[in-house]
Amino acid sequence: MQLGIIGLGRMGGNIARRLMLNGHTTVVYDRNEAFVKGLSEEGATGVSDLQALVAGLQKPRTVWVMLPAGAPTEDTINELSTLLEDGDAIIDGGNTNYKDDVRRAKALAEKGLHYVDVGTSGGVWGLERGYCMMIGGDAETVQRLDPIFKSLAPGLSNIPRTKDRSASADPRAEQGYIHAGPAGSGHFVKMIHNGIEYGMMQAFAEGFDILKTKNSENLPEDQRFDLNVADIAEVWRRGSVVSSWLLDLTADALATDPKLDGYSGSVADSGEGRWTIEAAMEQAVPVPVLSTSLFARFRSRQQSTYGDKMLSAMRFGFGGHVETSKK
Amino acid sequence: MQLGIIGLGRMGGNIARRLMLNGHTTVVYDRNEAFVKGLSEEGATGVSDLQALVAGLQKPRTVWVMLPAGAPTEDTINELSTLLEDGDAIIDGGNTNYKDDVRRAKALAEKGLHYVDVGTSGGVWGLERGYCMMIGGDAETVQRLDPIFKSLAPGLSNIPRTKDRSASADPRAEQGYIHAGPAGSGHFVKMIHNGIEYGMMQAFAEGFDILKTKNSENLPEDQRFDLNVADIAEVWRRGSVVSSWLLDLTADALATDPKLDGYSGSVADSGEGRWTIEAAMEQAVPVPVLSTSLFARFRSRQQSTYGDKMLSAMRFGFGGHVETSKK
Amino acid sequence: MQLGIIGLGRMGGNIARRLMLNGHTTVVYDRNEAFVKGLSEEGATGVSDLQALVAGLQKPRTVWVMLPAGAPTEDTINELSTLLEDGDAIIDGGNTNYKDDVRRAKALAEKGLHYVDVGTSGGVWGLERGYCMMIGGDAETVQRLDPIFKSLAPGLSNIPRTKDRSASADPRAEQGYIHAGPAGSGHFVKMIHNGIEYGMMQAFAEGFDILKTKNSENLPEDQRFDLNVADIAEVWRRGSVVSSWLLDLTADALATDPKLDGYSGSVADSGEGRWTIEAAMEQAVPVPVLSTSLFARFRSRQQSTYGDKMLSAMRFGFGGHVETSKK
Amino acid sequence: MQLGIIGLGRMGGNIARRLMLNGHTTVVYDRNEAFVKGLSEEGATGVSDLQALVAGLQKPRTVWVMLPAGAPTEDTINELSTLLEDGDAIIDGGNTNYKDDVRRAKALAEKGLHYVDVGTSGGVWGLERGYCMMIGGDAETVQRLDPIFKSLAPGLSNIPRTKDRSASADPRAEQGYIHAGPAGSGHFVKMIHNGIEYGMMQAFAEGFDILKTKNSENLPEDQRFDLNVADIAEVWRRGSVVSSWLLDLTADALATDPKLDGYSGSVADSGEGRWTIEAAMEQAVPVPVLSTSLFARFRSRQQSTYGDKMLSAMRFGFGGHVETSKK
Repeated sequence: MQLGIIGLGRMGGNIARRLMLNGHTTVVYDRNEAFVKGLSEEGATGVSDLQALVAGLQKPRTVWVMLPAGAPTEDTINELSTLLEDGDAIIDGGNTNYKDDVRRAKALAEKGLHYVDVGTSGGVWGLERGYCMMIGGDAETVQRLDPIFKSLAPGLSNIPRTKDRSASADPRAEQGYIHAGPAGSGHFVKMIHNGIEYGMMQAFAEGFDILKTKNSENLPEDQRFDLNVADIAEVWRRGSVVSSWLLDLTADALATDPKLDGYSGSVADSGEGRWTIEAAMEQAVPVPVLSTSLFARFRSRQQSTYGDKMLSAMRFGFGGHVETSKK
Repeated sequence: MQLGIIGLGRMGGNIARRLMLNGHTTVVYDRNEAFVKGLSEEGATGVSDLQALVAGLQKPRTVWVMLPAGAPTEDTINELSTLLEDGDAIIDGGNTNYKDDVRRAKALAEKGLHYVDVGTSGGVWGLERGYCMMIGGDAETVQRLDPIFKSLAPGLSNIPRTKDRSASADPRAEQGYIHAGPAGSGHFVKMIHNGIEYGMMQAFAEGFDILKTKNSENLPEDQRFDLNVADIAEVWRRGSVVSSWLLDLTADALATDPKLDGYSGSVADSGEGRWTIEAAMEQAVPVPVLSTSLFARFRSRQQSTYGDKMLSAMRFGFGGHVETSKK
Repeated sequence: MQLGIIGLGRMGGNIARRLMLNGHTTVVYDRNEAFVKGLSEEGATGVSDLQALVAGLQKPRTVWVMLPAGAPTEDTINELSTLLEDGDAIIDGGNTNYKDDVRRAKALAEKGLHYVDVGTSGGVWGLERGYCMMIGGDAETVQRLDPIFKSLAPGLSNIPRTKDRSASADPRAEQGYIHAGPAGSGHFVKMIHNGIEYGMMQAFAEGFDILKTKNSENLPEDQRFDLNVADIAEVWRRGSVVSSWLLDLTADALATDPKLDGYSGSVADSGEGRWTIEAAMEQAVPVPVLSTSLFARFRSRQQSTYGDKMLSAMRFGFGGHVETSKK
Repeated sequence: MQLGIIGLGRMGGNIARRLMLNGHTTVVYDRNEAFVKGLSEEGATGVSDLQALVAGLQKPRTVWVMLPAGAPTEDTINELSTLLEDGDAIIDGGNTNYKDDVRRAKALAEKGLHYVDVGTSGGVWGLERGYCMMIGGDAETVQRLDPIFKSLAPGLSNIPRTKDRSASADPRAEQGYIHAGPAGSGHFVKMIHNGIEYGMMQAFAEGFDILKTKNSENLPEDQRFDLNVADIAEVWRRGSVVSSWLLDLTADALATDPKLDGYSGSVADSGEGRWTIEAAMEQAVPVPVLSTSLFARFRSRQQSTYGDKMLSAMRFGFGGHVETSKK
């Protein structure tokens, strides 16, 4: 089928490519003309503004917005809402806060427009492996767009099927996409996915830190090992309880740079990690590990915190302790 | 080759079976005569005491002890050490604290005996999938026993190879086993594996708790979704960043019991989780997520803690707050 | 001076009383007529609606709203804003989210009204000990209301002065109240106060839990002590680093109920604890202890979590472990 | 009464001084002759080795060892045990692990010697304010030494008495010392005290970090305040729930250095913090806040961790994210 796509960065561009590989047609737009030109050469219909994009689509139109969350997405959807017509649909495939989805869906519905939020996981690997998608929106629209989602999804691939999964269960989940519920639910599920991701990453990070430090010359010689972290990551990939895609990536990284000297150790976080904690607080769910994982990232970006200095100040106050400098 | 095995429970019995399937011979012993009889019928040489086990093995002998950590293992190894002879080897395949390995290896070396510690992951799935093994001991002995480890390991199986792994890297890691270093290092690496496992599990637990609670009638109706946790686990298995064996198991469990009503929620922990924290403290490594994951299990086993009551008592003290009862 | 007070619960009533004890006059209102009647008998001018309250005050009027945060406070302020006149002031002394203060101050300023937010700590003890107050608002209004704040504050009392505090520092802080900055800053500081409070309480709770558990019959007899927690709280009150008002309250509670059997252990939390975490996330400040303290309260209110059950489910999945029931 | 004191550093020297001020006599020794000479001039009997110290004491002798925990204390007690005689007593006033106390008390008892462990809080302030002491040992010896403890303790001073404390309760607790139980229990209680101390300090550190950061130019101007952290610490000292000695010290520090530029922010930890976590693990008590507080100190001493770099490596792996450098 036909899809309009706005935003042709790494994600949007590859989504267009994967769709075209699967026989769909795309009308594409990006502020950056070079991106539009590039995809046009790969078979897309490139356009130079939103009016042209809307004009190039048959009704009912569907436009996939794949832009940074916040103002870029919001502004684009607002403009689109003035161009599209009753029965058309807007997909937000970015990292939007699910509360914005709920709000937008309501506002757009008043204009007869459908709103679908798609949380996608798979990043730079999606073109090749397919995108894992969590979709929110009204059932009818999500059903109408099924050919799009089916083509973008990874499919069963070579992953073993869950043994006790009921024959009556929604078959889409096994194909790598779900209709999670009404607008907002797609991004909500994706948000939690990222929260879990932070926790898993931090678990690996802490564990490997102990392994690495066990080799350290700071330890007495008779307490030291000479562990090969690359081999450890590799061996755990086969048959261990912690085998996972994140471990595969870790093994990749350690294979060529076991000391990880190429990385700054200053770790960014995106909105989803924080919103996961907000959701937990709204729902009174205890999430000490997810929150601590987020805060480890905040901490990683600073040389020292004001709080650390305050600890030193108190220790000086009650015990006369003078802290030495950082190692 | 030939191996003596002591302890024929789920782990020890399956190790014997997998070895026999691969052409090795075993001499087996267990306090429980029925276990010995059972394995004898599958081809093992069953014996009724340690003397007979030692007598049934050709020199240099190797005895795999697969018993609960602590006294059962310690006592058995002590007794074996009086029966074995110069050049023989003892393997401890259980969940021993690595410091006990270091101590034992030194004591046994004085008698000319070799000590090898093998941390194994794979649990009830090992017979079929193979055991992921982390091995500590002197290089010569570990090399001599290679046929055993090779047969027990999962092998390359259908897991994609790590792309940048050097051709000169130890090939055993890809086969699912490593020689981690001297005695103790095998169990050390396994211990950290379990620490990481706790963290990953807790990350999933917290994330799914938010998902589940988002359906709760305690939330205002307009903030509620109706998320299908089984479908979510299933979809994440395909192409998402959190795909992992633990997620596969979660999808299995949720497929038949999405409310998890069949589980008490009182979660045990074994020694490795605690020892991981001890190691981190000895090495001054910050592990807030691994420790918090352990403590979540401690907490799960109690109705309420003395600490919780103390919070209530303080709140009454400064604010006159009277806590209501638990929901 | 003269003050209108709306909301005569524990906090509002005692504020009126402390002001009257210090020579101020009050015009008071509460939905509950009995409260109005009671305070009238103590010297206040009781009124039966907001119109009468406003009518009873001389210009420039000041009305202290002491109601539950959220709708009760919001609605009352909205109504007041239609009754008051240019130059009048509204004080919100409740537990309002500081962002609501910022919004309200802006809206009220457009009507010529001043808005002052006062975070107060001291709870049920305030009448006797005075209220520790953190005040936000424009400097002129806060200065005009100084007689009120001065009377409500604890004053220097018998607390030793901070030795290196500059003579040029704001003298109000030593008296127990500060002008923190523009509208919102008072409640912001109070919010952080409560966040810290949660952390300190949890630190005590965990420590005493270890002390109490060290007496437990679950421990081997030779590892057990018979510690007297009431005496321990008492002794720490004198000269130890942890001496604090919270410890005083703990000692009070333990003196009569060392087992804390009178408390449910189901611990409530108010908005400030959650908002503190939100603020930390907005500012990228790592607050693992404040957040973990909040989550310990969430956890305290449940028998078992869905997350705990998921841990059990995974453990069954990979190891065949069957969890026993809760103790 | 008469006391031998070994170790005349800040703690040991002031203990001697406080005892002499209260009419006791001391025989003192330190490796550092200058310390011995100094205290001799203040009235103590200085000696130049342990033999002379023992010879200078009347039976039953009591020797207070005030040395760094570990080898210095252990070696000294071992040597003393060969010099002392049946009925004599050794006090360890240092920061010894309570398990060492239990072991030593048993070994010394076989020689007829009494062992008393005294955990002391009060640091550099003890000479003036008195020492808060938690004492382990046999009741008879602790009773015999009561005059020493009574003189060292702060006494009731001007701290209000706990209102509901029973008249039959042990009166020593109010005086600032307790007999906690058998050998080891004194240091056990002190250990938990320090664990709590870490948690309280971290709670303050995190809270003040949010306050400080709220002034940061990294925030959008309309979200920024200009909070005075020194005034905030000061105001909380009067009537707030977080009032405490640690807050007093914080107010002291902030009064002269509100940016805390004089502190490195690299925060040391002593054994007690770690042992508290060990004890919690042995007793299965959930202590997420105490452990997280300890780990914040570990983290404070590093520029970046191997774990942080691993997070960056994974983020690059799945998303192509390149982390920027630390701010």
